[in-house]
Amino acid sequence: MQFFSDNATPVCPEVMAAIAAADQADFGYDGDAWSGRLDQAFSALFDAPVKALWVTTGTAANSIALACLCPPYGGVICHEEAHIVVDECGAPGFYTHGAALMTLPGSGAKLSPDMVKDRLGATRPDVHQVPARAISITQASEYGLAYTPDEVAALGAVARDHGLGLHMDGARFANAVAFLGCHPADLTWRAGVDIVSFGCVKNGGMIGEAIVFFGAQAKDRAAQAERWRKRGGHLLSKGRYLAAQLLAMVEGDLWLSNARAANAAARSLADAASGRLLHPVETNELFIRLTHDEAARLRAAGFDFYDWGEGAARLVTNWSQDKDSVQPMADALKALG
Amino acid sequence: MQFFSDNATPVCPEVMAAIAAADQADFGYDGDAWSGRLDQAFSALFDAPVKALWVTTGTAANSIALACLCPPYGGVICHEEAHIVVDECGAPGFYTHGAALMTLPGSGAKLSPDMVKDRLGATRPDVHQVPARAISITQASEYGLAYTPDEVAALGAVARDHGLGLHMDGARFANAVAFLGCHPADLTWRAGVDIVSFGCVKNGGMIGEAIVFFGAQAKDRAAQAERWRKRGGHLLSKGRYLAAQLLAMVEGDLWLSNARAANAAARSLADAASGRLLHPVETNELFIRLTHDEAARLRAAGFDFYDWGEGAARLVTNWSQDKDSVQPMADALKALG
Amino acid sequence: MQFFSDNATPVCPEVMAAIAAADQADFGYDGDAWSGRLDQAFSALFDAPVKALWVTTGTAANSIALACLCPPYGGVICHEEAHIVVDECGAPGFYTHGAALMTLPGSGAKLSPDMVKDRLGATRPDVHQVPARAISITQASEYGLAYTPDEVAALGAVARDHGLGLHMDGARFANAVAFLGCHPADLTWRAGVDIVSFGCVKNGGMIGEAIVFFGAQAKDRAAQAERWRKRGGHLLSKGRYLAAQLLAMVEGDLWLSNARAANAAARSLADAASGRLLHPVETNELFIRLTHDEAARLRAAGFDFYDWGEGAARLVTNWSQDKDSVQPMADALKALG
Amino acid sequence: MQFFSDNATPVCPEVMAAIAAADQADFGYDGDAWSGRLDQAFSALFDAPVKALWVTTGTAANSIALACLCPPYGGVICHEEAHIVVDECGAPGFYTHGAALMTLPGSGAKLSPDMVKDRLGATRPDVHQVPARAISITQASEYGLAYTPDEVAALGAVARDHGLGLHMDGARFANAVAFLGCHPADLTWRAGVDIVSFGCVKNGGMIGEAIVFFGAQAKDRAAQAERWRKRGGHLLSKGRYLAAQLLAMVEGDLWLSNARAANAAARSLADAASGRLLHPVETNELFIRLTHDEAARLRAAGFDFYDWGEGAARLVTNWSQDKDSVQPMADALKALG
Repeated sequence: MQFFSDNATPVCPEVMAAIAAADQADFGYDGDAWSGRLDQAFSALFDAPVKALWVTTGTAANSIALACLCPPYGGVICHEEAHIVVDECGAPGFYTHGAALMTLPGSGAKLSPDMVKDRLGATRPDVHQVPARAISITQASEYGLAYTPDEVAALGAVARDHGLGLHMDGARFANAVAFLGCHPADLTWRAGVDIVSFGCVKNGGMIGEAIVFFGAQAKDRAAQAERWRKRGGHLLSKGRYLAAQLLAMVEGDLWLSNARAANAAARSLADAASGRLLHPVETNELFIRLTHDEAARLRAAGFDFYDWGEGAARLVTNWSQDKDSVQPMADALKALG
Repeated sequence: MQFFSDNATPVCPEVMAAIAAADQADFGYDGDAWSGRLDQAFSALFDAPVKALWVTTGTAANSIALACLCPPYGGVICHEEAHIVVDECGAPGFYTHGAALMTLPGSGAKLSPDMVKDRLGATRPDVHQVPARAISITQASEYGLAYTPDEVAALGAVARDHGLGLHMDGARFANAVAFLGCHPADLTWRAGVDIVSFGCVKNGGMIGEAIVFFGAQAKDRAAQAERWRKRGGHLLSKGRYLAAQLLAMVEGDLWLSNARAANAAARSLADAASGRLLHPVETNELFIRLTHDEAARLRAAGFDFYDWGEGAARLVTNWSQDKDSVQPMADALKALG
Repeated sequence: MQFFSDNATPVCPEVMAAIAAADQADFGYDGDAWSGRLDQAFSALFDAPVKALWVTTGTAANSIALACLCPPYGGVICHEEAHIVVDECGAPGFYTHGAALMTLPGSGAKLSPDMVKDRLGATRPDVHQVPARAISITQASEYGLAYTPDEVAALGAVARDHGLGLHMDGARFANAVAFLGCHPADLTWRAGVDIVSFGCVKNGGMIGEAIVFFGAQAKDRAAQAERWRKRGGHLLSKGRYLAAQLLAMVEGDLWLSNARAANAAARSLADAASGRLLHPVETNELFIRLTHDEAARLRAAGFDFYDWGEGAARLVTNWSQDKDSVQPMADALKALG
Repeated sequence: MQFFSDNATPVCPEVMAAIAAADQADFGYDGDAWSGRLDQAFSALFDAPVKALWVTTGTAANSIALACLCPPYGGVICHEEAHIVVDECGAPGFYTHGAALMTLPGSGAKLSPDMVKDRLGATRPDVHQVPARAISITQASEYGLAYTPDEVAALGAVARDHGLGLHMDGARFANAVAFLGCHPADLTWRAGVDIVSFGCVKNGGMIGEAIVFFGAQAKDRAAQAERWRKRGGHLLSKGRYLAAQLLAMVEGDLWLSNARAANAAARSLADAASGRLLHPVETNELFIRLTHDEAARLRAAGFDFYDWGEGAARLVTNWSQDKDSVQPMADALKALG
């Protein structure tokens, strides 16, 4: 049983079926019928008129989104452990043509409005200093913690007050919504978010994520993003196979039910390992204290996962699991004492 | 019956089967078993030790290849109608950080060694002028014409003499090999080619192409390309679904049999429209004279294709067709007189 | 007597005096009194409210101007022999982050409105093709020819009709004005020009040129240009020594009298070599037929200049010359027969 | 009496004389006699064969140096208060095409080898993370502190052990040498430094700094830097006026005597304000505690300087001052109690 990553998981059957159903002739690039339904599908999901573009990866989604919000001479305020900082080999710097990532610390890889305000206050408004032009947050965070609607709104207010764009890396957006039980709109445009990278692959997809644009500038930004998408080499010539996956996710509630399953599995493990948790478990990731010996015993019993530095481990659950299916791991964790 | 583009075609069954077979848990990114077999599979195909990387599109393959050959202050000599010039929204300029495309005219969208030499001779070697650092050719060309092994070798010699890299955009490499009947090695490393963008999607794949690196610098360039791939957002988190497609193509001869089918279909149409051809038909594209009325009659009869400027049309055949299946179109063309 | 280039010439005494006068303590960068007078001085010169920034070179001026008019995925229509194409090592591609130079042929290195319109008409408006976003012309052209106010206005109309910016590389703007005898406004904002790179060094300055912004977007573009200037490393820490040079040029009519002197010298040589001219002589450059032997005889007599390909030479006159001072060269040319 | 900045100071007479002496015809760009002497002059100064290029500003020098050491996907380890981080509007990101600045804290704006090693140890060597490729230090630091030869050598050893380049921002290199009393070679190539940005303007120059390349790769890196210099718009067309300034500085000991004067002035003020110092005073900058009232009294007495946050001030001395000339300020500081 593997807890390496939600990437290591197969594609969910509904997505495979959607791909098979899209296997027919149609116009190339994003001229097909499936791509043509994206705006509508995401507008329904977010209960607002939005623009939605498919891209091939979350790194591309994040980078293109930031390029729409931040000029080359600007900066993006983000957490020092954000995926865009530590796991994308500088892709945001590539797509923005050199914008700076202005990193802040913060518990659970979450940004606090006060720290953002302090950072903004410490920048002189002259041409010598890089001006912040965007804030980027990860939902759920790199430690699996969800920003509540109020927390997002507080950052949205800072962004608005300082004329900054607000981007949300939603690789695990579905897991956050599943945990919070709120409407997706409450975590996004109602809270001041301009662009979301909407995750699909970690949640059961094969290839492809969406960039969703909100608000009055949605159309202009999406038009610009279409240029970056093409220029970045992300405009697939058979885009229908990607669009179909996203539609399979969001035209029904597959995105949410998959996330609920993964969260439930994580909840079960968290209850079993409650004395070991390094962070609260809100979505589908657990960070636990685990000695070298304990890790070895779990692995010997067939449970796979990554170490997380010395004396700790990361377990990621996924759409194909649930409370019941991970019971053996829960038992094994409990047995460690 | 559609002749819009080889993009408009469904995925071939063998590729779909390979995707289904890859639908299992494995390590993320390119850490999986399928990705791990690419070097070997392409080395066998090219009869030489090569490095092969998957990327999501031909635009990404071309751009990353050029970024491995040309510094930001350099130039790439190419045909003025090359795909990298007219159909990639400046992607090579993005990935190379601003290298210039040095365009030349030439019949059938093919470069001639003499024109390349003239262009090189016209550049002063001082810091004021952009120095050419690479040549890029398309095989088959944008008008469906194949460079013979000797023609490639002649350009390879120019490249070697001037210290330039030689890149081949092989979106339809398979069609060229199918037409020429030569060994893939004769069109590539034996002729001085450094990097090929090896096409898959136009030839029956769903998503993904390969970048193949030849020669003594293959390993270093591939290592650099891995950085551009990640940085460009092309390192899929479930790469096995892409790698499996490429393996399905090249571990057997599917890549060649698909191309032969498409070429045969084009040959059949070319014979039927021999008086209308704007270019010789060597692979799977036809450019024909066609009046507005004639085009309308064909379309009314259920044949779809793109106009190609005033009084002309482009027909592209694909892997799912062959001599027999396109007989109705051949008849219709013949019937136009 | 040298006719290599207007670069090879000393600084004119008025500029040296202005530098000496600026040699006192003041605020750094562009916070000094001299820099503060630039907008006013250029507004007076152009008879309109303009924004003016100093930069260190013409290459920087051109590149920053183009970066204000053209996004990374756009293109700049220009002559294939323009300085920005052949003499700046790709600097426009650097500052624009990869925009394409869309080159056109044309007699005397001048663009014709019809050719520009044809080029615009040949671009599809989809995301696959690089959209033109600016036109750049050189005044006087690389062959010393001036665009008349009507010629500029015709290009300005094309730019306006297609939503393009219009940039003028005015390294020898003063020489063009001196030749045409028109008001500077007639060659710029009245004719639809958005930004001029205003030359100083070739016309007697030491270090530094100006970027002048016209029209309703002047302020926004200048603010953006200030960022590129700093980011490109052009914000001198003792900017007063540069600003003082520009003021010396344009607060009086030094810019024009220097150019008139250079033009008069060229006129004199042109009259002497009227049978050899490859281009009409309008400003301070002559391109003449000259055999190897003839060139050798002139050089033996102490006249220095550059060859211009086989059987031709380029002579450039400068501010320190005039009709009388170049009489020996005029006589020598006449003596060649 | 002003202590705003060494930028606010006039040009020293020897430099002005050198400019006047260079005011004659010569070849353009860096083809002149003065530019041709730079390698030799700096080789003599550093007692080793070096390559030296002039550029217009320190920002350009730093950025071009870093572009020679770090690829777009790499990172530069530096202090979080380094000039390249906080005062260059992202210029290093521009010239490196997006490399990351990996910032570290540290007392007095100096990097410690241990912190650098820790940072290097925290990076995984996979393609997901930005690999450090260079270290950049400021000599003297942003708080006026000098790295000793041993301290530089310790960082040089870390760089060598990890295959990183080592860059020194030497805007105030002369002041550091003047303080340490060591040979310039001990602070540079003998300690593992690859490239120095050698300051001139803050030390009495008008416009221009040097980039000095050491070691086996000096020639290759300088050749690359010449491309960046041109491409960045820094290749002045009358380069002799800049080269002459650098030669005036380093062909004799003007660079050192100017720095000694500035340091002596600072020493005198430091002694007078010894109870107020926020950092030790080693070169020509003082950071002192100063209340709002005290600052007002000094200003009323004719002493100008910048506040440095709340309750503090920065005083910078310069080449035109010395122990005696700043005595009034020393007295005024002492009088504050």
